[in-house]
Amino acid sequence: MASQQFEPPSGTRDFLAADLRVRDHVFSVIREVFERYGFEPLQTPAFERLETLTGKYGDENDKLIFKILRRGEHEASGEADLALRYDMTVPLARVVAAYGSQLPTPYKRFAMGPVWRADRPGKGRFREFAQCDVDVVGSASPLADAEVVCAVADALDATGVGDFRVLVNSRRALTGLLEVYGVAAEVGGGVLITLDKLDKLAPGDVVRELVDARSLDTLTAEALVGDLTAEDAVERMRTVLKDSEEGRAGLAEIDRLLDLAGPTVGVGRIAFTPSLVRGLDYYTGVIFEVVAAGMPGSIASGGRYDRLIAALGGPDVPACGGSLGVERIIGLLSNAEEESRRIDVAVTVMDQDSLAEVMAFTSGLRSAGLRSEVYLGSSRKLAKQLKWAADRRARYALIYGQQERAEGMVTVRDMDSGEQNQVPVDQLASHLRGR
Amino acid sequence: MASQQFEPPSGTRDFLAADLRVRDHVFSVIREVFERYGFEPLQTPAFERLETLTGKYGDENDKLIFKILRRGEHEASGEADLALRYDMTVPLARVVAAYGSQLPTPYKRFAMGPVWRADRPGKGRFREFAQCDVDVVGSASPLADAEVVCAVADALDATGVGDFRVLVNSRRALTGLLEVYGVAAEVGGGVLITLDKLDKLAPGDVVRELVDARSLDTLTAEALVGDLTAEDAVERMRTVLKDSEEGRAGLAEIDRLLDLAGPTVGVGRIAFTPSLVRGLDYYTGVIFEVVAAGMPGSIASGGRYDRLIAALGGPDVPACGGSLGVERIIGLLSNAEEESRRIDVAVTVMDQDSLAEVMAFTSGLRSAGLRSEVYLGSSRKLAKQLKWAADRRARYALIYGQQERAEGMVTVRDMDSGEQNQVPVDQLASHLRGR
Repeated sequence: MASQQFEPPSGTRDFLAADLRVRDHVFSVIREVFERYGFEPLQTPAFERLETLTGKYGDENDKLIFKILRRGEHEASGEADLALRYDMTVPLARVVAAYGSQLPTPYKRFAMGPVWRADRPGKGRFREFAQCDVDVVGSASPLADAEVVCAVADALDATGVGDFRVLVNSRRALTGLLEVYGVAAEVGGGVLITLDKLDKLAPGDVVRELVDARSLDTLTAEALVGDLTAEDAVERMRTVLKDSEEGRAGLAEIDRLLDLAGPTVGVGRIAFTPSLVRGLDYYTGVIFEVVAAGMPGSIASGGRYDRLIAALGGPDVPACGGSLGVERIIGLLSNAEEESRRIDVAVTVMDQDSLAEVMAFTSGLRSAGLRSEVYLGSSRKLAKQLKWAADRRARYALIYGQQERAEGMVTVRDMDSGEQNQVPVDQLASHLRGR
Repeated sequence: MASQQFEPPSGTRDFLAADLRVRDHVFSVIREVFERYGFEPLQTPAFERLETLTGKYGDENDKLIFKILRRGEHEASGEADLALRYDMTVPLARVVAAYGSQLPTPYKRFAMGPVWRADRPGKGRFREFAQCDVDVVGSASPLADAEVVCAVADALDATGVGDFRVLVNSRRALTGLLEVYGVAAEVGGGVLITLDKLDKLAPGDVVRELVDARSLDTLTAEALVGDLTAEDAVERMRTVLKDSEEGRAGLAEIDRLLDLAGPTVGVGRIAFTPSLVRGLDYYTGVIFEVVAAGMPGSIASGGRYDRLIAALGGPDVPACGGSLGVERIIGLLSNAEEESRRIDVAVTVMDQDSLAEVMAFTSGLRSAGLRSEVYLGSSRKLAKQLKWAADRRARYALIYGQQERAEGMVTVRDMDSGEQNQVPVDQLASHLRGR
């Protein structure tokens, strides 16, 4: 932990080498998968014009936007004109509006990087955290939904998360469901928000909230919750939804997705899940969530949102996408990570007259791709320098004292076994490279 | 260009795929070199507490700091409590103060990422731009200076910049020089700032500024500028500096650096350069600058700054470092970059009934590492889909119509030659992989 005075600002983190390497590795394997799918990287500025962001996230969330004070003579006004990126989707809408025909059609892009939200910091909740989004803008094809789901699942596999399941539903199926149960359209949104809590609350509590807060009658609420949480919920839904046109359309798009993505994701790892709701009201078609064994909540999610890009200020184009919970994934992997070696070769410095020679052969080691460090401290004692080599978790330490120099040799010490060998200076790189 | 309404904020940029790939490539090769030297990555938050930054950069520069408005009930105060990172050095000082003994000794770190300055935007001058710093904190050894210079030169080589020279001088040599010429200590700093303009102004103009603005007498100013700009400036300096203790110490550290770094950098690419000044007054030892053929200004620079970490709020430790002008380097490379292929395989969709099969063999191509895309548009026409494949600059297009499906074959079209072959579905990945 950082001593308090020098801690990073509340809700943010300093990433030292070990953590940063895990993060960079995760981003890098995800990037590789997305590129294989033909998704293109996009990077937008850390801040946007304030008016680009405000009004896009709802009143409560607008309060969480970090705003940047005007500068120079305008600073005293206390007004803001810029704001830190709150997510990757509003910048995407702006980019689609800005570059239109310069972008491929459809525009398949991924974005990875920090976003900032002035949330109350807590365990696993940060004010600066990474998001990782993959989206297809400008295609209404069910193949696009399938591509997103497959890319997300492949990316999770590549990070090594392993044991996960993809839950699938459709916003149209949910609309059909409400229709069949006679829920009035104007309370439908609220009912879905409450149903979304089925993975956290007991069924009875959800029924109570549906009655108290969403004004459903008790019978309807119990039937709805009963069907969604039944052992045979999938069969019940398949029957019930047939009575609604929206329901039938929803079922068809769910089956389409299972059909197209199943073979890639693994048929046993993807399933229609009637109780999956996704509270966000911008979804218009299939929706999905990925859950991992032993983890509460989801590690990825997404769906089709055909009207969102327009609502965010972009053109009116169909779109779908997914988001990986990279911070949670990194958290999973960091705990598992072993302490790894930091460097290959630690070069001790025994003789001030031979510094140039030491630098020269170290340079050769680096050219051969060996991670090598020269001792930069002030001690002349070998024992102290070998302790430094051990602290750096080097595989080998090199000793080049007066005797070695006279003989044109370098002593190579294996830091695990303590074994020492003499190797001619001009064979050092190939010798160490070979081991 | 973005249509104006949707442009990114003034002084910032959206990076679409082609540009972003060049940037990421440059960062990646630099990272690899620094890691080979045993430098560790560090990433600090985008913003710091305001008090961490203010007063560290001088009054003029303080105005360029982007400040973040307080939130919630405090927003109306118009006050700021946070500010965007202005450079990588102040965060380094904070990290060294915060994590002390958890860090290796010395702490060799590199940092790459955006910084933000509310400068007036202009050609090649941005408000959000990348910095790339490499530093050794906690070593007074001349080897540390040499390691920094070698790492910077190796990194430049790795990016492909090629034709560059490393100019070397020493702050102590400059102090000795002023001493020998009888320049009063209290005007010395100003004299050096003026001498720093020798690479931009005519010698006569520099003499004039030394007389007018720095109150040197004309004879001294002319002698100083004359010696620094002479053909045999190096020889003159080597003679002159012998008359001062600081001068002799400076010469010794310059020669040490040339001796240690010369073999790695290339002896012909590094040289003592008496007119190199580096305006920044925090340097205490050797200083360097890297210049590239045909480019005004420098593409990298650095030196020893033994008292800066303490001045910035960190502990009092010796340190040295260098900074790569990554934006300039990226600019050099972007102009040279060729249009590259975007994807390996474009998969057309001729038959709605075979979508699942198309997805399945595309998935196989991706597993084999081929960058593959499926057509997501609405046209059923082959010609239109082949135009899409050409727009995507695919190497191959695949056609899987009813006839191919009946025969278990896929038609592979070479997008350069137009040649078409039929390949069994189950041999597709190995066939394309092999070519």
